[in-house]
Amino acid sequence: MKKILNKPESYVDETLAGLCAAHSHIYHQPQPRLITRAEKTNTNKVGIVTGGGSGHLPVFTGYVGEGLLDAAAVGDVFASPSAELMAETIRAADNGQGVLLLYGNYGGDVMNFDMASETVDFEDDIRCTTVLAADDVASASPEEAAKRRGVAGMIYGFKLAGAKAEEGASLDEVTRVASKAMANTRTIGCALTSCILPAVGRPTFDIGENEMEMGMGIHGEPGIWRAELRTADEIAEEMFERLQSELQLTEGDAVSVLVNSLGATPLEELYILYQKIEKLILAKGARIVQPLVGRYATSMEMTGASLTLCKLDNELEQLMNAPAHCAFWRV
Amino acid sequence: MKKILNKPESYVDETLAGLCAAHSHIYHQPQPRLITRAEKTNTNKVGIVTGGGSGHLPVFTGYVGEGLLDAAAVGDVFASPSAELMAETIRAADNGQGVLLLYGNYGGDVMNFDMASETVDFEDDIRCTTVLAADDVASASPEEAAKRRGVAGMIYGFKLAGAKAEEGASLDEVTRVASKAMANTRTIGCALTSCILPAVGRPTFDIGENEMEMGMGIHGEPGIWRAELRTADEIAEEMFERLQSELQLTEGDAVSVLVNSLGATPLEELYILYQKIEKLILAKGARIVQPLVGRYATSMEMTGASLTLCKLDNELEQLMNAPAHCAFWRV
Repeated sequence: MKKILNKPESYVDETLAGLCAAHSHIYHQPQPRLITRAEKTNTNKVGIVTGGGSGHLPVFTGYVGEGLLDAAAVGDVFASPSAELMAETIRAADNGQGVLLLYGNYGGDVMNFDMASETVDFEDDIRCTTVLAADDVASASPEEAAKRRGVAGMIYGFKLAGAKAEEGASLDEVTRVASKAMANTRTIGCALTSCILPAVGRPTFDIGENEMEMGMGIHGEPGIWRAELRTADEIAEEMFERLQSELQLTEGDAVSVLVNSLGATPLEELYILYQKIEKLILAKGARIVQPLVGRYATSMEMTGASLTLCKLDNELEQLMNAPAHCAFWRV
Repeated sequence: MKKILNKPESYVDETLAGLCAAHSHIYHQPQPRLITRAEKTNTNKVGIVTGGGSGHLPVFTGYVGEGLLDAAAVGDVFASPSAELMAETIRAADNGQGVLLLYGNYGGDVMNFDMASETVDFEDDIRCTTVLAADDVASASPEEAAKRRGVAGMIYGFKLAGAKAEEGASLDEVTRVASKAMANTRTIGCALTSCILPAVGRPTFDIGENEMEMGMGIHGEPGIWRAELRTADEIAEEMFERLQSELQLTEGDAVSVLVNSLGATPLEELYILYQKIEKLILAKGARIVQPLVGRYATSMEMTGASLTLCKLDNELEQLMNAPAHCAFWRV
């Protein structure tokens, strides 16, 4: 296992220690697995909380920050945080205006966040709403969109709902924006090599020396097809078409684009994908707002990339351009 | 070869096309392999130019931007740009105040930049000075420090000289700051797996499944030792001690720290390294200014990490905190 670490069992805690030490003006760690903003600049806003398994930096914890999230509950690698920890995280984010729970659509996370939400309602009188990121088009058909997993596209939820909350909007308004953001967002990924769980020490899945898998999930969930590695242009075209068939971008539409590395795939290859994807979008007559190219949601050292499109109406475009500041994204 | 690309021979040009398309407000491409700032906000400043082989993003091109570089000459993967291209790059960066050439200490780059410098002096009456980044302590002994290669630490030269130039300082002053910055900067890296040159299609070097190499260069140049993979704390301690023996950080010193991934090594592991390195620095009584953790100088998909320390006097600390803005670094 080619990882720079001490012990697998200290992987998450040492990662968080380093994150909070390196960016102490952004992140604060009131409990070992709970990260909040270092400073509460606005003590009267709706709180936004996320959470989930580790191994996806900057997701989830990295998006705590101004104009983004208020707090994150951190699980073990690829494992859900406990309901108790989630309840503590909600309490830490609450300013008396209620809290939006915004996270990926995975069974364990949904179960635990639902329990946490009931606990804080009962014990602390905190009202919570929930919006799930379910942007991975490869994980279920459009008819079963509610079953889809949440992947890189969730960062548009963080950004847009975060900007709305910063404006002083009510919980219902912030929830409406988060729902609209996720309804307008689609992602598809492809993997070339597996990641390695620190506690397991070997690849999660095997894949041939010349193969890729289109639509593979960020934990190695099965995708749509596995075949010989295609060219960047072919991959870009297929990814774009799979999203476009649902989003139907057309003349005058505004869209944000995220070309994301799953970890090991270098920036050079992301830009090679981007130059093709930009052409495909412009050919539809759409306009690109704030393109993002880099590592925004990863699976440790997995090789591969994902494409996310978020269609922006006037309200979302304005929120997209509002200030935001965490260690990995600044607007 | 698990790379997302079209043809090896279009790798660099498509990368640059994507970079300039995604960040058109930052980068401008007047010639295929020449990148300048999108906007010349200050038309009376000293120019700063860099250049070198591709495959190291964000180095070199990515650091063109406000408070940083004015222009970069882009070579093929791991290959020097031509002297003609470098001369064009110097011309593009010149505002009549002279141009600092600031780049890594590699034979081909030195030869070509020296020729370019003579050309523009003779043909265009542009005065150039040169400061080489030679921060890699593993590449030669302290007695032969002038033979050392330039690696991740060069970004401190870009930042500090860039800030000085933005103040309107003379070429001699900007050159003095660049020299001081590089004299105060040391780097050491370690590699766990090789990168793959697109045109070659197989790893540059072989390394055992459980091995690492301390001090390996970013093109796969031989390092100091190769042995079984050590723990993160052991790696952090050795890297720190090798730099500390030259920098001699002590009570009250200010230092910036860069924990850099060579490509595939994920953020999680960088933060595990950082939390240890921070303790080692604080134990010396030194103070950390603007820690950087991420991918600042890479070798495509190479696995491994480097540590850079830049010791800051009052002047350098102030320049470190001056505004800067490129697609990969914002102060």
